[in-house]
Amino acid sequence: MSRAYNFCAGPAILPTEVLQQAREEMLDWRGTGMSVMEMSHRSGEFVAIAKEAERDLRDLAGVSDDYAVLFMQGGASSQFATVPLNLLGDKSSADYINTGIWSKKAIAEASRFADVNVAASSEADGFTTVPDQSVWHTNPDAAYLHYTPNETIGGLEYDFIPESGSVPLVADMSSTILSRPLDISRFGLIYAGAQKNIGPSGLVVVIIRKDLLGQARAQTPTMLNYQVIADNDSMYNTPATYSWYLAGLVFKWLKARGGVQAMGEINRRKADKLYGYIDASDFYANPIEPRFRSWMNVPFTLADDSLNSAFLKGAEERGLLNLKGHRTVGGMRASIYNAMPEDGIDALIDYMQTFEKERA
Amino acid sequence: MSRAYNFCAGPAILPTEVLQQAREEMLDWRGTGMSVMEMSHRSGEFVAIAKEAERDLRDLAGVSDDYAVLFMQGGASSQFATVPLNLLGDKSSADYINTGIWSKKAIAEASRFADVNVAASSEADGFTTVPDQSVWHTNPDAAYLHYTPNETIGGLEYDFIPESGSVPLVADMSSTILSRPLDISRFGLIYAGAQKNIGPSGLVVVIIRKDLLGQARAQTPTMLNYQVIADNDSMYNTPATYSWYLAGLVFKWLKARGGVQAMGEINRRKADKLYGYIDASDFYANPIEPRFRSWMNVPFTLADDSLNSAFLKGAEERGLLNLKGHRTVGGMRASIYNAMPEDGIDALIDYMQTFEKERA
Repeated sequence: MSRAYNFCAGPAILPTEVLQQAREEMLDWRGTGMSVMEMSHRSGEFVAIAKEAERDLRDLAGVSDDYAVLFMQGGASSQFATVPLNLLGDKSSADYINTGIWSKKAIAEASRFADVNVAASSEADGFTTVPDQSVWHTNPDAAYLHYTPNETIGGLEYDFIPESGSVPLVADMSSTILSRPLDISRFGLIYAGAQKNIGPSGLVVVIIRKDLLGQARAQTPTMLNYQVIADNDSMYNTPATYSWYLAGLVFKWLKARGGVQAMGEINRRKADKLYGYIDASDFYANPIEPRFRSWMNVPFTLADDSLNSAFLKGAEERGLLNLKGHRTVGGMRASIYNAMPEDGIDALIDYMQTFEKERA
Repeated sequence: MSRAYNFCAGPAILPTEVLQQAREEMLDWRGTGMSVMEMSHRSGEFVAIAKEAERDLRDLAGVSDDYAVLFMQGGASSQFATVPLNLLGDKSSADYINTGIWSKKAIAEASRFADVNVAASSEADGFTTVPDQSVWHTNPDAAYLHYTPNETIGGLEYDFIPESGSVPLVADMSSTILSRPLDISRFGLIYAGAQKNIGPSGLVVVIIRKDLLGQARAQTPTMLNYQVIADNDSMYNTPATYSWYLAGLVFKWLKARGGVQAMGEINRRKADKLYGYIDASDFYANPIEPRFRSWMNVPFTLADDSLNSAFLKGAEERGLLNLKGHRTVGGMRASIYNAMPEDGIDALIDYMQTFEKERA
């Protein structure tokens, strides 16, 4: 067997070294005679694993003690409801920026709990750009301002952190967290489904400024109440222990590679190389305004859509997997998260060149 | 290394064969070049894994097409809110039976959404028995009747399925599901956190009669709406894919061993042996009325509490782990789920005899 280059948008490729360690420890974690997934979440062993993962995440992302770090379940989609349930407080309205399919989903769910003000949208531009903040119609009295820094499907990424004044800034960081340095202190709340840059699915990491805790609406399900989860170190009930452990292994892997500073440089190199090749070609194209191109998700089209299946088939034969674009966008998409090695980009470009030569 | 006998109440011991298979497949599932946890949940490979797991669970538990099987997140604790949010419909009241700590937690959470009628309780008896159904004050107009067939902490297990007439019967089966045959057709809804008899934590299985779908309260978070989850084959968003896969391996393991009929016989034998030894001893004791003793969780006390830590220390030295009872009950607790081999019971009894001889 050999490991494929898996360009899936999520669940996504994980570092081979992390999977190797998980394999080694599967039946017996450090001589305990147990797999991590067999451990009581309240055992000394697991609590140590959990705390170390949190510490490493804090180190990596630069999360100060002003913030609580929560390891929850239900993915980012659960957070679409959990955020308004917890952050509206005595306000009724929240601002959202609409830059793609994930923004829209967050907006649709929040609208069930709050008066949502879509303060800006790039829908009329086919989500190929981010509206300049000068034209945003934000509400200074909003409970919070929500945006999606990286649109996984469209391949659009903000190159700036919005200025929100005293309104807490909330971001769905699922597909960009830990991919480059980020000033966490600018945010009220960040959430990120794990299955892109953190670990396996079934885990969602929430980083929340502590002064925003304690505002949950009366009928918030207890398991969605940030205050309860924070007060119980994410162990109000049994957490997703094995996913938490694997996230910890990924954090160690990132630290060993120089953290987000180094990853940011590698990721920029990977993205530049791939976009550079696409732009230089007349056969491949990417529609996003260059400064807002995602470092993590690179959609591209072929000059002739009827070649798509031949392209995908040839890619698979070379172990370049899951390049098919999202059905709403079409074409191809290469998700190139932290765990995608630079060799994977080279292999993809090499194949794209060959395919273009044969078919163009 | 050698595998320990892990008597933890959950996350609990898993079959060694299941962990071995997971280890083998960790970096490359059947020549795909990917770990299962790296697969898109919408890929042909993962959908096949997911569907096969559901089919095997349906076979094992005898679940007819009148029921939907959902693979959700958030554990049984999330279900404590999800059940009333989805099943109250146009009613305001639900019946609950209180037989222990998990009943109480379910009641506390449901009381935030419904008028809860505690139709019977054994709290005055220290939760050592199940009130006879003849004294239950059930409400014929209740939206549903909820009970906890097996109280994991107290070690109390119903030896009957309550008669609920036309009121849907709802059960938290977390620690008893698949441990013995069960007539699913008697239930409106069953839920079970995976981390006892099914797989790793981070997954909760819900079996719901289809006519009970579609009643969710208006402001139910979408991710907690059974109808949405059912309509999307539990893939409205990214499910806990790796936990689902592991659950599937456990289901195969159970089928290969003769299913719940065979497991029921083995589990009865395991429980009888352990309770038999406890009853024959003057040193150990179990407080539960014999007919309601749990087959899965066996709490016991030593004649002298001051010996508890010596008992636990000696147990650990023999690889008999996590025997400490829940802090609210004290003493010891041996959780002996499906994956605990009969040899584990023999080893425990052997140690208990030795300890008694030395210390009594």
